[in-house]
Amino acid sequence: MGIMRTVTREDDLDLWRELGQQLRVDSIRASSASGSGHPTSSMSAADLMAVLLAGHLRYDFNRPDDPRNDHLIFSKGHASPLLYAVYTAAGAIDDAELLTFRRLGSRIEGHPTPVLPWVDVATGSLGQGLPIGVGVALAGKQLDQLPYRVWVLCGDSEMAEGSMWEAMEHAAHAGLDNLTAILDVNRLGQTGETMHGWDLEAYVRRAQVAGWHAMAIDGHDVAEIDQAYTDAARTELRPTMIVARTEKGHGVAAVANQNGFHGKALADPEAAIAELGGLRHIRVSVSPPDQTIEIRPRPEPDVVRLPAYEVGTSEATRRAYGEALAAVGTARHEVVALDGEVSNSTYAEIFRQAHPDRYFEMYIAEQQMVAAAVGMQVRGWRPFASTFAAFLTRAYDFIRMAAVSRANLSLVGSHAGVSIGEDGPSQMGLEDLAMMRAVHGSTVLYPSDANQAAAVVAQMVDLPGVVFLRTTREKTPVIYPPGEAFPIGGARVVRSSPDDQVTLIGAGITLHQALAAAADLSREGISARVIDLYSVKPIDTGILRQAAAATGRLLTVEDHWPEGGLGDAVLEVFADARERPRIVKLAVRIMPGSATPAEQLAAAGIDAAAIAAAARELVASTAAPVPADVAAR
Amino acid sequence: MGIMRTVTREDDLDLWRELGQQLRVDSIRASSASGSGHPTSSMSAADLMAVLLAGHLRYDFNRPDDPRNDHLIFSKGHASPLLYAVYTAAGAIDDAELLTFRRLGSRIEGHPTPVLPWVDVATGSLGQGLPIGVGVALAGKQLDQLPYRVWVLCGDSEMAEGSMWEAMEHAAHAGLDNLTAILDVNRLGQTGETMHGWDLEAYVRRAQVAGWHAMAIDGHDVAEIDQAYTDAARTELRPTMIVARTEKGHGVAAVANQNGFHGKALADPEAAIAELGGLRHIRVSVSPPDQTIEIRPRPEPDVVRLPAYEVGTSEATRRAYGEALAAVGTARHEVVALDGEVSNSTYAEIFRQAHPDRYFEMYIAEQQMVAAAVGMQVRGWRPFASTFAAFLTRAYDFIRMAAVSRANLSLVGSHAGVSIGEDGPSQMGLEDLAMMRAVHGSTVLYPSDANQAAAVVAQMVDLPGVVFLRTTREKTPVIYPPGEAFPIGGARVVRSSPDDQVTLIGAGITLHQALAAAADLSREGISARVIDLYSVKPIDTGILRQAAAATGRLLTVEDHWPEGGLGDAVLEVFADARERPRIVKLAVRIMPGSATPAEQLAAAGIDAAAIAAAARELVASTAAPVPADVAAR
Repeated sequence: MGIMRTVTREDDLDLWRELGQQLRVDSIRASSASGSGHPTSSMSAADLMAVLLAGHLRYDFNRPDDPRNDHLIFSKGHASPLLYAVYTAAGAIDDAELLTFRRLGSRIEGHPTPVLPWVDVATGSLGQGLPIGVGVALAGKQLDQLPYRVWVLCGDSEMAEGSMWEAMEHAAHAGLDNLTAILDVNRLGQTGETMHGWDLEAYVRRAQVAGWHAMAIDGHDVAEIDQAYTDAARTELRPTMIVARTEKGHGVAAVANQNGFHGKALADPEAAIAELGGLRHIRVSVSPPDQTIEIRPRPEPDVVRLPAYEVGTSEATRRAYGEALAAVGTARHEVVALDGEVSNSTYAEIFRQAHPDRYFEMYIAEQQMVAAAVGMQVRGWRPFASTFAAFLTRAYDFIRMAAVSRANLSLVGSHAGVSIGEDGPSQMGLEDLAMMRAVHGSTVLYPSDANQAAAVVAQMVDLPGVVFLRTTREKTPVIYPPGEAFPIGGARVVRSSPDDQVTLIGAGITLHQALAAAADLSREGISARVIDLYSVKPIDTGILRQAAAATGRLLTVEDHWPEGGLGDAVLEVFADARERPRIVKLAVRIMPGSATPAEQLAAAGIDAAAIAAAARELVASTAAPVPADVAAR
Repeated sequence: MGIMRTVTREDDLDLWRELGQQLRVDSIRASSASGSGHPTSSMSAADLMAVLLAGHLRYDFNRPDDPRNDHLIFSKGHASPLLYAVYTAAGAIDDAELLTFRRLGSRIEGHPTPVLPWVDVATGSLGQGLPIGVGVALAGKQLDQLPYRVWVLCGDSEMAEGSMWEAMEHAAHAGLDNLTAILDVNRLGQTGETMHGWDLEAYVRRAQVAGWHAMAIDGHDVAEIDQAYTDAARTELRPTMIVARTEKGHGVAAVANQNGFHGKALADPEAAIAELGGLRHIRVSVSPPDQTIEIRPRPEPDVVRLPAYEVGTSEATRRAYGEALAAVGTARHEVVALDGEVSNSTYAEIFRQAHPDRYFEMYIAEQQMVAAAVGMQVRGWRPFASTFAAFLTRAYDFIRMAAVSRANLSLVGSHAGVSIGEDGPSQMGLEDLAMMRAVHGSTVLYPSDANQAAAVVAQMVDLPGVVFLRTTREKTPVIYPPGEAFPIGGARVVRSSPDDQVTLIGAGITLHQALAAAADLSREGISARVIDLYSVKPIDTGILRQAAAATGRLLTVEDHWPEGGLGDAVLEVFADARERPRIVKLAVRIMPGSATPAEQLAAAGIDAAAIAAAARELVASTAAPVPADVAAR
């Protein structure tokens, strides 16, 4: 296998034991330098990581972007002192940086983030590393087709998260023999014993029944650990779970296997380090991946040929999404799609039919779906993950953590709002805009017609961060000719005249209700401007300020709860302006039941009639026009 | 057992078969009347429900609030036509109402909700009914101590949700032999075959390894079904999972066991009904629960004796939460607490120590934690479920569905914001206010000192809907004497004078930064009003409007992303006011790393210095005072 090490094979066991002690000592030193952190949770897994680093990991720390590199993910992210001790032993960081643990400005954060080039993804919210590792392993098998291995260090406490079970099912179903879960069963959680304590067989049986190769070992016996890793690497068609019995705080009698020491620096670090045999300075020459492994070049990007929809016809933006994504996927070979077993509703099925090799069925497991997307983008793929907008709430913890991971991915939520009709509130995305806007660095798009949807999908593939596309179940009129530009961060004035008295602002299905309302109002002599706010975040402040200056009155309308959506995005624009327009916000303020789409829109007070009524009242009740200099500021 | 039925025992098998056909026919009729819905998913489980209704369920449909009643939860909520057919057979609804399925104003909604008195909780987001059933069963065993059984009809597709695994682990761990999961393995999901298809043993093995009694049966053989229910009722110490092989669309050749018919009304309902033997009019006299079962009266409520904190000392609101909840629990015997294995951080442990019989350790399984809370409130208990605010994102789908369930429960998120310090962004609740505000009918509270926290906890126990309490990790100064009133929906002017030029609005940790900023500004001759916005939703519009009228300039500051939080709540108040103050919103706009709490607040631009700087700029840049009539509107 071409393994290079600084020591000879016969010294391995001793080296590993010593390295394990070094990792413990350095975990204690880092956490004592900061006065916080999780040394005892690091100490339990130190031997597991020592043997991995020195004997099994294939990683070039000088070239973290080498596609052949293995991946090491700390699903138990709170064991970050151990991870940083591993990086120190590998020579990736120096001792001085190790001791900046948890300090302002340090890359050595409390929980790992990709601020460090060797960290693929942020962890620290438990139960995420393994599902993300499934995504990386799926990429290795089906997309990269490279033999790298994915090693995930898991805690026993986090096995209580259902997302870990989703990962176990998916990994086995996909035959991910490139994935190894290393389960650090130190028995103790934050407050007490886990559900299964040291019942290693409980974990082994669960893994086996899910279809994994699984074994129980002594997590402090380096020979057993080495054997287990060798066994994992040789296992075909199945992922491997190594269930390791360990002691929390192993090696230091004052804390070993005792409750009450979770997440605390040791009281007497000097004594603990002495008990562990003092400082060591072992430097491991980690084996790089085999450089003869061929990397398949990705085909050059082609020009995207988007679908075109004829003005005057009707089409659902969800279908335009599917058709546009298939087209983008033809031109851009890094695009992959995932769906939560509703691809005939989201229309991800159109991508699946066009590019079956880049489509992933994630079944009804939204957490695993988003995690897999995060894992795939680690390897430079560009995932689009879709389900009903309502069901993305299931994965909100994964979405917020994707932002901490600096992940670039697209999420697509169909069936937004009450306008889905009869299915009722359980299926209605009514908080998705609020949820997605409150993700750091996110982009939130809500197209109003099919050509516009296609145009934004084509741009999504190049946007950084977490990008959310909200699509509509119902067919809506095609109002824009094919080929028009809809830049991210823009808005479109769909209707205007010099004597506009009020501006109606909608997106998606409500834009069409606003247009109908404007037509009605026009017949009564009220001239209404209509703005299509297809980019909710970032928002087009220029167009909104112009409208405010021209009409003095804004009316927002959204198929969403009143909090955190399109209306609030507009309010934000004018928060500290010196002159502010009056803004009336129409949104869903009742709990819907079942009804037709039109009835739902009427009942929620966001249909054309409700918009027209609110606009009439706004115009009638606002006597004085707003000064024209609003737009200038 | 005192079973009363309209037929004799020897006719049971025939009755059940006929009843199964009736349930199929009525499922088809309901969905055909609406032109939508899920008849085929109903038809697979019809025999399972027929035998349950006629032979095993103990339920008084005239007295749905009888504490002795069994509970029937459709975890596969899309099989609602079947549930309504069951209610029709039980005489609870009449045929005319059945045919209002999915119509505007009908109680017979697309997915079940508690608008119907026999529906405990809303379902339709898959993977929720079983974890909620665990909560009801926990209440039965540990709180009510009543022998009612909980029957949960599950779909095979939803077994892919990790929350189902959380439920399986918890149910076995708690020995919930009063819980029976009926798994309708019809093999087909929405788009195709499930991961395990008709591999019944795959489900049996998974259930067994989790600690359940499990068996595979033919889900269309009424004798086998009857035997399975009898077996479940006799099983002690373990929950039972009945894994039933069924056919989707069973009984109608045009759709039976065929892909492509999910969620669609049948093309030819008349022919299908004829094939099923036509309409039937079986009326089942469902056995009521044994009325001799004694219901333990709940002790009368006592006066709550809240903890008191001395002004001038410091205490964390999270600790005040724990101490106040323990006190409330002493006086109010319906209060229960659940925690996600962080009770020494949220301080739920103080409740646990005081009331161990009403405390539930949910381990690191936030979805199951919230679901269990929903289940317990079904039985009239008042749950407080706590974890880090960041980790409540894990359960957002359960939280939004709790609102659809019209559930009354309290969620408590500790460790909000960057001010937690060194742990870094994975542990920081920075989207929790946005998430919780965008829950229909929610209340969002964010107290600023320990006595205030105690005062709001005492009120939370009586609030309807989903109530969220945000607590702070750090100790903050106690500024209010014990015993003061802090009504929900109120705010508190902490500092004011007639010549205030600007109003600083904060809550939680930022209130104290705002007070420090006001002190600094005062030394420079700028008089600042300070408002404690401890009730973010509902919000005190009166106090805010007075402040706007008096000072013309508002500055909000929150330890939260800019979207959807405290600042947006304030913006909303002035949206359509005729005169609007300038509002500057300070919030966290950078991705934090690790640092001390003080460094984090400074880096995010929400500490006293940043507030003072922003206030100075706002005062300097706003020349004209706002007209005094703002407050009047």
